[in-house]
Amino acid sequence: MINKIALAGCGNVGTALLEILHEKRNILKNKYNFVFEVTMVTDIIKGTIADPNGLDLGKILEALHEKNSLKNFKQKEGTFDEILLYSNATMLAEATPTNLKTGEPGLSFIRTALKNGISATMTNKGPIAIAMNELMALAKENDAQLKYEGVIMSGTPLINMISSGMTGCDIIKAEGILNGTTNFILTEMSEGMNFDEALATAQALGYAETDPTGDIEGWDPAVKIAILAKILYGIDINVNDVEREGITHITAEMIDKAKAEKSKIKLIASIHRDCNGEIHAKVAPTKISRSHPLASVDGITNAITLTSDNLGETTLIGAGAGRKETGQALLTDLIAMAK
Amino acid sequence: MINKIALAGCGNVGTALLEILHEKRNILKNKYNFVFEVTMVTDIIKGTIADPNGLDLGKILEALHEKNSLKNFKQKEGTFDEILLYSNATMLAEATPTNLKTGEPGLSFIRTALKNGISATMTNKGPIAIAMNELMALAKENDAQLKYEGVIMSGTPLINMISSGMTGCDIIKAEGILNGTTNFILTEMSEGMNFDEALATAQALGYAETDPTGDIEGWDPAVKIAILAKILYGIDINVNDVEREGITHITAEMIDKAKAEKSKIKLIASIHRDCNGEIHAKVAPTKISRSHPLASVDGITNAITLTSDNLGETTLIGAGAGRKETGQALLTDLIAMAK
Repeated sequence: MINKIALAGCGNVGTALLEILHEKRNILKNKYNFVFEVTMVTDIIKGTIADPNGLDLGKILEALHEKNSLKNFKQKEGTFDEILLYSNATMLAEATPTNLKTGEPGLSFIRTALKNGISATMTNKGPIAIAMNELMALAKENDAQLKYEGVIMSGTPLINMISSGMTGCDIIKAEGILNGTTNFILTEMSEGMNFDEALATAQALGYAETDPTGDIEGWDPAVKIAILAKILYGIDINVNDVEREGITHITAEMIDKAKAEKSKIKLIASIHRDCNGEIHAKVAPTKISRSHPLASVDGITNAITLTSDNLGETTLIGAGAGRKETGQALLTDLIAMAK
Repeated sequence: MINKIALAGCGNVGTALLEILHEKRNILKNKYNFVFEVTMVTDIIKGTIADPNGLDLGKILEALHEKNSLKNFKQKEGTFDEILLYSNATMLAEATPTNLKTGEPGLSFIRTALKNGISATMTNKGPIAIAMNELMALAKENDAQLKYEGVIMSGTPLINMISSGMTGCDIIKAEGILNGTTNFILTEMSEGMNFDEALATAQALGYAETDPTGDIEGWDPAVKIAILAKILYGIDINVNDVEREGITHITAEMIDKAKAEKSKIKLIASIHRDCNGEIHAKVAPTKISRSHPLASVDGITNAITLTSDNLGETTLIGAGAGRKETGQALLTDLIAMAK
């Protein structure tokens, strides 16, 4: 069977997915029996193209690399719903920009896919943070799959590890460095920069946005913890209910003091179930010993330690962002959905 | 459908599996839709019991805990093959002692299961190190599954991560601490013991065997690297072809020198594919910087860093042995086989 992929959102991540698919077509077929065509690509700026028999990925990538646009191709007119159905897609890869207030436009795209029995994967935290229950129910109802490996640590396979690698294990606590920007800033500060210099460097390197509030005030890891609350404990936590403290008040003196105590300050995002069954969710700068498994996690790298009944501490360290890394998350999910 | 489990080998790991299954019966049913009966338990010392309708796990565990024997139950007479078929098992959990020369008795047990279309999981490195190709072919031929999460890092889900979490990723290098005993010895040495003291401590704590050769000469991680060669690159490497150096010649002076250089000596097991496509497999004490992700992995903990095209470095740190940890590996595989 040919898997027909629709891609919504063709920015850095979407383009990386197309590149990986194009480069690895033969390997994916031979090693994973994953045969595919991309039958739709839609991007609010670059344009919308569709062909139920498969688009020419080579030409699409050439246009994206040279003109950063798909407008040279014949545009497909219609609503997203109409074009998705026209494309005969069997799976949707959703990589539109994250909107944590409305989840749009990704949320509507995913709803449309699932309602039509089309499985969906996303790297966009918005829809999953806002409507995970609804989307899971929709998927079940329509015999479709819903995946979202990329929403927490990009392609670093945390969600796969929880749902498939540790099946039957009771995860009591998850504690991690889930935001690369703040970890980069704290790392630079531990090497001598003050907060403003470190933030400016992060912005210059493209790690932090012009308005860095989402990162430095801890909103981004708080959303990820809210998603983990659902995955690990099946409960709904509003991001506003995550106890949250950012890193803006961290001074060079505090960093130096921690160093003198053979410790490091890290922005730790955590969730745990206490012995009364109550769930505690928190994001806060935390002093951890240099021998702690998360202490050596520097720069933009992410990491998480899961504490469980049968395995004790299991730590996963890896990329937390990046175009290829997040494209890989979509690929992992697409292949899993085809099985 | 009721999954009927046969357990071969009822030592620490086998008993831990039975404990987990007994404790978690309801959770496994409700959360994973995994409904099961244990229909056969065989152990060369403790005895052999079978009932196609399901054995009483509570009574079995009571007997194991109180008498360390199953001889009080009515013994089932016959060959392994006969009893396995009598038990109506749909899956075999194999946890007999490892024999790296013959793979027996586990190898024959697994062959019997697969030939009869019964899926098998093992925590025993022997069969997989000796006959992985044959067993994979047998499984395919008979429409059965073959799993072995526990053979490398016990329940820490390395194999799941490679086969399911990083699908489509090209893993160029794997480098890790895959033997807890030697890592414990090196950790104790870095805290002041000499080699003989550290080894004696490891033996006293049950981490090292009376004949510690397999660990301290690096045979155990070499076997794991040979298994990884097959999983990652599909090639057969004899354990004798893994370049191998143990830790017996490591002195307190060498440890101190490394410390002075802000480094640590770790027994690193590695395999990588160079740009000519050649595979290099090696186990050797290696000086790594204190900022290396593997440097903070102390004591009996295991860890591995996978370097891949799309994800860069992904590191997994966790238990490398232990009864519950390895029982969990069997459980993960059993649930996956039921899907």
